[in-house]
Amino acid sequence: MRVSQFFLSTLKEAPTEAELVSHKLMLRAGLIKRLGSGLYSWMPLGLKVLRKVENIVREEMDRAGAIELLMPAVIPAELWQETGRWDVFGPQMLKIRDRHEREFCFGPTHEEVITDVARREIKSYRQLPINFYQIQTKFRDEIRPRFGVMRAREFVMKDSYSFHADRASLEQTYEVMYQTYSRIFTRLGLKFRAVAADTGAIGGSGSHEFHVLADSGEDAIAFCPSSDYAANVELAEAVSPSAPRPAPTQPMQKISTPGKHSIEQVCEYLKVPAEKTVKTLLVEGRDGGVVALLLRGDHELNEVKAGKLLQLPEAVRFASDAQILAAAGCRAGSLGPVGLNIPIIADRSVAVMSDFVCGANEDGYHLTGVNFVRDLPELKEVVDIRNAVEGDPSPDGKGILELCRGIEVGHIFQLGNKYSSAMNATFLDESGKDRVMEMGCYGIGVSRIVAAAIEQNHDARGIIWPPSIAPYELAIVPIGMGRSELVKDTVNKLYADLKAAGIEVLLDDRDERPGVMFADMELVGIPHRIVVGERGLKEGNLEYQGRRDEKAQAIALNSVLEFVQSKLCED
Amino acid sequence: MRVSQFFLSTLKEAPTEAELVSHKLMLRAGLIKRLGSGLYSWMPLGLKVLRKVENIVREEMDRAGAIELLMPAVIPAELWQETGRWDVFGPQMLKIRDRHEREFCFGPTHEEVITDVARREIKSYRQLPINFYQIQTKFRDEIRPRFGVMRAREFVMKDSYSFHADRASLEQTYEVMYQTYSRIFTRLGLKFRAVAADTGAIGGSGSHEFHVLADSGEDAIAFCPSSDYAANVELAEAVSPSAPRPAPTQPMQKISTPGKHSIEQVCEYLKVPAEKTVKTLLVEGRDGGVVALLLRGDHELNEVKAGKLLQLPEAVRFASDAQILAAAGCRAGSLGPVGLNIPIIADRSVAVMSDFVCGANEDGYHLTGVNFVRDLPELKEVVDIRNAVEGDPSPDGKGILELCRGIEVGHIFQLGNKYSSAMNATFLDESGKDRVMEMGCYGIGVSRIVAAAIEQNHDARGIIWPPSIAPYELAIVPIGMGRSELVKDTVNKLYADLKAAGIEVLLDDRDERPGVMFADMELVGIPHRIVVGERGLKEGNLEYQGRRDEKAQAIALNSVLEFVQSKLCED
Repeated sequence: MRVSQFFLSTLKEAPTEAELVSHKLMLRAGLIKRLGSGLYSWMPLGLKVLRKVENIVREEMDRAGAIELLMPAVIPAELWQETGRWDVFGPQMLKIRDRHEREFCFGPTHEEVITDVARREIKSYRQLPINFYQIQTKFRDEIRPRFGVMRAREFVMKDSYSFHADRASLEQTYEVMYQTYSRIFTRLGLKFRAVAADTGAIGGSGSHEFHVLADSGEDAIAFCPSSDYAANVELAEAVSPSAPRPAPTQPMQKISTPGKHSIEQVCEYLKVPAEKTVKTLLVEGRDGGVVALLLRGDHELNEVKAGKLLQLPEAVRFASDAQILAAAGCRAGSLGPVGLNIPIIADRSVAVMSDFVCGANEDGYHLTGVNFVRDLPELKEVVDIRNAVEGDPSPDGKGILELCRGIEVGHIFQLGNKYSSAMNATFLDESGKDRVMEMGCYGIGVSRIVAAAIEQNHDARGIIWPPSIAPYELAIVPIGMGRSELVKDTVNKLYADLKAAGIEVLLDDRDERPGVMFADMELVGIPHRIVVGERGLKEGNLEYQGRRDEKAQAIALNSVLEFVQSKLCED
Repeated sequence: MRVSQFFLSTLKEAPTEAELVSHKLMLRAGLIKRLGSGLYSWMPLGLKVLRKVENIVREEMDRAGAIELLMPAVIPAELWQETGRWDVFGPQMLKIRDRHEREFCFGPTHEEVITDVARREIKSYRQLPINFYQIQTKFRDEIRPRFGVMRAREFVMKDSYSFHADRASLEQTYEVMYQTYSRIFTRLGLKFRAVAADTGAIGGSGSHEFHVLADSGEDAIAFCPSSDYAANVELAEAVSPSAPRPAPTQPMQKISTPGKHSIEQVCEYLKVPAEKTVKTLLVEGRDGGVVALLLRGDHELNEVKAGKLLQLPEAVRFASDAQILAAAGCRAGSLGPVGLNIPIIADRSVAVMSDFVCGANEDGYHLTGVNFVRDLPELKEVVDIRNAVEGDPSPDGKGILELCRGIEVGHIFQLGNKYSSAMNATFLDESGKDRVMEMGCYGIGVSRIVAAAIEQNHDARGIIWPPSIAPYELAIVPIGMGRSELVKDTVNKLYADLKAAGIEVLLDDRDERPGVMFADMELVGIPHRIVVGERGLKEGNLEYQGRRDEKAQAIALNSVLEFVQSKLCED
């Protein structure tokens, strides 16, 4: 494509509204234009990237045997009422009334629609399993849309839904989708991790999130660099320390700690590291009574784990000041396990501690040199109730955990029969009995991937596209095309030759100043660049620079095609 | 694709809701499934056709230098308020309120959005002309959605919008789009006509509609089979008869015609053909007075032409009984031009009549043998105010008009500056002056084309796809695949060979009864079919039948690939 016949619209400065690097660069490179809050037009250059992402997703879904269809964006309320989600989905669902005052929504997801299709179309076990997918514009009315297409209201999603005769078949397709997603993100050229995830609002059990790793990610991920273990920090297991509990060496002492309530204050005052302290948290148990949770001073309570352990229906509730006073005779800042007459649950790390510091259950006092068995009863309940931290052993035993941040771009779920039973999606099994189908669902945030790719791949000069989704593979920048017939003729021939070889070339034929053209080609992130200037040509040379290269190199004009092809093969 | 791994879902009977052939066949062939009123899911087989249409449209738009982008489906009300269309678009526009009670609509068309893009992006004449397009899901809240995807509420459209420095540039791009649309519909394999059209609601001037010819079409078209002339019947010129007015041969006589008011009644009573009668219609002129319009008895008034002629702001209004009585002294059924003392406007066909019959301006009487000049003054105003009819000379002088019906699938407009001036979309011209851009817009009903193609191409057994948009090019139907190893092996090898040759093959490996498989492949409209049976194989033969062929023919197994390729080349 010649720039003069295309539409390139770059900006020197990003609009002030943009906070995230990807948002700034997408606006500056002219990939998107804002129409309204959370609403963006995909400009020609941006659409090229979006379509490349779409195509890779489509090819891999097809390869996995999934079958593409296209459901309406506008969905009647009745379907959502069958599953009860019309009322519980909340204001993220954009509700609509038509001219006859009938209710609809702009589909934020399509479980109900596809389950309706399945219950009408699938009669027999012989039609199962089947996996339908679509690539479609969806809408979620985010309360605070921001970060450009990263959290837009209107967005493009690949959503697929599989139907099965039994759980084993669901698990098989789930595994195929896991592998397919891994292949998709690998082909997209992104560093990613599949992390075990909690199932969240869609419901069901068994799910992985696919995260593109980037410092700006909203989610904290614990992963093992020497294996494929990865989990949301909230779900990563903190395994038991392998070393046994050391024997006591200090006597227990009660020490005045006036005004020292936090672990930090106590550590500073007593000159002990936080790892040598025990933090005691009182929470409400399932029966309304109070339970003590013990954590090492430098660890954080994982409320999801604690909630599951205590079998709480909702979130963990911390005890009130009055409950604490009644249970321990002091305020929260002086709590400790010694002499405490309520159920005690300890984190695994606490169980191997000795000579530790904790509150004395008396305002203004702490205990030092505390030891289990000697100073307080041996722990009865030792469990995992903390967040994993950097340096923890990986739960798969294959290394040490690191923490990073990720942008969620894919999610796969084993839904089970949540939707199929609510909507009575049944089939006749081999013995002629009516049975409810099992379902899986698998989403990819197609438009979000474009932003995530930039978060992971950019520098001060702009975007550095992974080659598989670059809008063009190669930029040709002629110097003085308007002045030099030699440059002009060379460039036109080169452009024709490279195009004929099937290479996607962007020829900057604007005859702008070189600095302007270089800056634009770098900003929009074309992976390879060839500069054609009269001086080099006279020596039979062009100049090549990869987007990540620090310096340009001279290449011979007569071998340029081979050179470019070998560079593209390296990608 | 193997049917066992695809999703084929055909019906014996179409649901009773379907009236139109295309709607029935799309449901029976399982191309679409109804979700709600005017809302359809595109099932896998239907989506394949839709995507083929999309791709042809995209390729030809790209070839024409148009640039693809993608605007949001959800559009803020403010933009529509700038052009005033928020209030005048009417209930076809699906209006939406978001969680903050801000108003939006599900875009029925995108003039406002693209004009907003243009006014922000285009600063200089050097950026003009430019032609943007998108292929997108749109929504129009039809009062009575029907005919399946022919008049659905949610539909896929290609809409493009061009911007220009001046009218000449607009006309140039308009011509390019005219040629591009012709190429698109030719490649789609459809019989179509580009007809000069009135500009309707979108406004502006200079427009053509592209119609797929089909008996069920909603629009009547006059076209010349020996040239490319075509027009909406309402707009087709009825040219002047070439023969001169014959000399009078009869005396004028007043004849009693009791109770005979209509042309039909009078003709029957007097035993004269309608072509020998003159119909007199009184309508209100611009100043409120009454004007007489003369038409040949077998012709119909064209109200659009009459309205323009009389420079009426709205529709033609016929005179009331009281106005008729005051002007002519009789009721409507006895009106005639003789002795009539109001302005008279005659259709061109009337001007060459002699010895004609007309009302006598006296209830219950008609005149026969009437002649201009002799019995009433020569006509002063002779114009075209009738609908063209079959057999009229073509206005381009190249033949005789025929009438047919068409389905509108494309529309191109010269919008002028209607939107650009309302939204202040200006650019700096070569002399540095601010000027308003000229605009064109060009739509194609992508999803409607699928239905229109079926209306034009079907028989009693089902759909007959034009090859360029068939979901698969060739069906292989094995007979007794489960019983015969020979059939199975041959079919699998054939399938692999044809696929390797780049042919899109659907292999019906369901091992159903032959009748079921034949009926399905015919219903879904695969253009070419090969039947593989043991009996034929033993003689080294397969059976081939084209979807339009009356009979099958034997072909040699060892030359099947060449045979199929030559058949595909004929398409």
